[in-house]
Amino acid sequence: MNDFRYYTPTRVEFGRGVETKAGELVKHFGGTKVLLHYGGGSVKRSGLLDRVIRSLDEAGVAYVELGGVVPNPRVSKVREGVALGRKEGVDFLLAVGGGSVIDSAKAIGYGLAYDGDVWDFYDYKATPAACLPVGCVLTLAATGSEMSDSSVITNEENGKKRGVNSDLCRCRFALMNPELTFTVPAYQTASGCADIVSHTMERYFSGAETVEPTDSVAEGVMRTVIEMAPRAVKTPDDYEARAAIFWASSLSHNGLTGCGRGGNGRVGDWACHQLEHELSGMFDVTHGAGLAAIWSAWSHYVMPAAPARFARFARRVMGVSEPDDEKAALAGIAAYEAFLRSIGMPTDLRGLGLTLTDEQLDALAYNCSFEGTRTIGSFRILKQADMREIYRLAR
Amino acid sequence: MNDFRYYTPTRVEFGRGVETKAGELVKHFGGTKVLLHYGGGSVKRSGLLDRVIRSLDEAGVAYVELGGVVPNPRVSKVREGVALGRKEGVDFLLAVGGGSVIDSAKAIGYGLAYDGDVWDFYDYKATPAACLPVGCVLTLAATGSEMSDSSVITNEENGKKRGVNSDLCRCRFALMNPELTFTVPAYQTASGCADIVSHTMERYFSGAETVEPTDSVAEGVMRTVIEMAPRAVKTPDDYEARAAIFWASSLSHNGLTGCGRGGNGRVGDWACHQLEHELSGMFDVTHGAGLAAIWSAWSHYVMPAAPARFARFARRVMGVSEPDDEKAALAGIAAYEAFLRSIGMPTDLRGLGLTLTDEQLDALAYNCSFEGTRTIGSFRILKQADMREIYRLAR
Repeated sequence: MNDFRYYTPTRVEFGRGVETKAGELVKHFGGTKVLLHYGGGSVKRSGLLDRVIRSLDEAGVAYVELGGVVPNPRVSKVREGVALGRKEGVDFLLAVGGGSVIDSAKAIGYGLAYDGDVWDFYDYKATPAACLPVGCVLTLAATGSEMSDSSVITNEENGKKRGVNSDLCRCRFALMNPELTFTVPAYQTASGCADIVSHTMERYFSGAETVEPTDSVAEGVMRTVIEMAPRAVKTPDDYEARAAIFWASSLSHNGLTGCGRGGNGRVGDWACHQLEHELSGMFDVTHGAGLAAIWSAWSHYVMPAAPARFARFARRVMGVSEPDDEKAALAGIAAYEAFLRSIGMPTDLRGLGLTLTDEQLDALAYNCSFEGTRTIGSFRILKQADMREIYRLAR
Repeated sequence: MNDFRYYTPTRVEFGRGVETKAGELVKHFGGTKVLLHYGGGSVKRSGLLDRVIRSLDEAGVAYVELGGVVPNPRVSKVREGVALGRKEGVDFLLAVGGGSVIDSAKAIGYGLAYDGDVWDFYDYKATPAACLPVGCVLTLAATGSEMSDSSVITNEENGKKRGVNSDLCRCRFALMNPELTFTVPAYQTASGCADIVSHTMERYFSGAETVEPTDSVAEGVMRTVIEMAPRAVKTPDDYEARAAIFWASSLSHNGLTGCGRGGNGRVGDWACHQLEHELSGMFDVTHGAGLAAIWSAWSHYVMPAAPARFARFARRVMGVSEPDDEKAALAGIAAYEAFLRSIGMPTDLRGLGLTLTDEQLDALAYNCSFEGTRTIGSFRILKQADMREIYRLAR
């Protein structure tokens, strides 16, 4: 087991009606004036925003609104939030929505505690030294941003999608009412589930070594999502399925499934995420679906580096009983592909509606390798040429 | 899934040498003068205390020492700590040791923030409203107190052992170096493992219902300890086994294995713990061994209330393949008893060296039921007569 730090200070309130605790918790964590951040009109139409505002009013917390966050949230909106927050003297960010809204709120939190342009952090020209406190009312099971140290922002000027990781931005609280996810459409639900499993896999496949109890916990989280996703896709108001997936989304990405892992000093492999970030930066695909479309090519490409690890996944998560490791590994990959297809997820880029030219493959690999200056992955370290080959295999 | 709150703010630093971060972390969390709390001479002989003191010195943190905490920590020592802490103007409690030392430090933290006698909290005459910050350098995998909200203290004047639960006392940080547990003797190691599994079981058997992903995570934690305990007992310096058990001790009791469970509004059953608290309050037995000695009688007594739940445990944790639920349940209980015996743990009270009289059975049940005023358990609710019967079956 490698050395690790585990730090998940987010206070989670989970269950029906917890969104009404927003005001009380903002106050508990020292907020007096909130930037209320959200996406499109659905949180208004559903009445959720009104309930949150009522709870702020009851707690005597002032607020200013900023809606309009889009999937793959934009740095332009973040800059708008920083300007507004500064003008209004905001001291707390409250995100009402999914991972995009939370990531945007975290970025605004960084920006409000910084004199320069917030994109500096995402372009790795600066490291955040502080972040205003963030809380959230979560409406989508997917990114795990509600408990994670991660914030991913897209720069629409250059198509770059970049993530910053720091404990500073971890939410003070996360209010998680599974009923708020009943209205999430089937495709978004399935994309979210693909994302959740991916967050666990990125850590599970960080290297060949076994790390108990982390592996056992990770396998339990993956089995849960694979069991519950078809139920949630088929029956949107299946509370038990929605609740299980919702909680799995947090556990997958709060650090728990990576404790003691980490190859090359990195906790996790993250190659699929990096490969997908370029894809959705360039084409604006749904993140989870993009991950699903890449995974099959990635897993076939890297599996030979340690078939026994994939065989463990196959046996413990996918129920494969084949005794030979390499055959089991392939059967496990096939079984996970079948799961993805069963919930309507793609297993290649055509399934995303994309037909890539050779030049586009080149561009993706060039961007993903930061113009040939970095490798990605730890299960198998991938250079620019490997990245291009995986994109090609996924085509 | 029932509604729940999950709040584990403890910052864990895990790995070789992390004890040297004590001073820096005390300072990070605002401490300027520490009450350095420990047990017997082993932390002195091993040099651990010196390393911790050096780290406090380097961080410019003042300290005053209070050793002498015993297993089943006493309220008299807690009162001594409160008096000393008040006299010396201590603002942080640093526990160096196992769960007893941490529980004692938490109790001192409550006492220093209270005008009355600290036993008021443990006698349920008052509820803590504040607690001075606590951190720990952990030397024993067992109680999970390093991340839990729990503190258990024994009043040697009346033999009562009582627990107080509150988020207020959760450690600010826990420094966990698995090497520090290499010197724990086989019997204490095994007792710790029995305690760890018990913390998960108390939640897993809180009721008949299935709660994914909590059940899957709990099963992973239990399987890990059951696999690794024999290795640690046989080979004291097996780092992987010690590390796995150490981390499992935290996961078992930080709330994770109870999320969404809870019968009768309580998160967990806790009958075995309550039955054992009376036992070790009266006879001063090792907590984990006491739990092991009670478990067999308890499980046979309550299993008929929901055999399917015990059958799931049998199949998913103990590897039982029997299709009939009741037969599988009994086979699972037998398999867990065999595990306990394999690491030198008792499965009845004789195995603890106790031969109880009928009058002693009466007294235990009388005390455990708070003089007949309360029931315990949620998997099956137990009255005073049920408690006596379980003690009798365990005799």
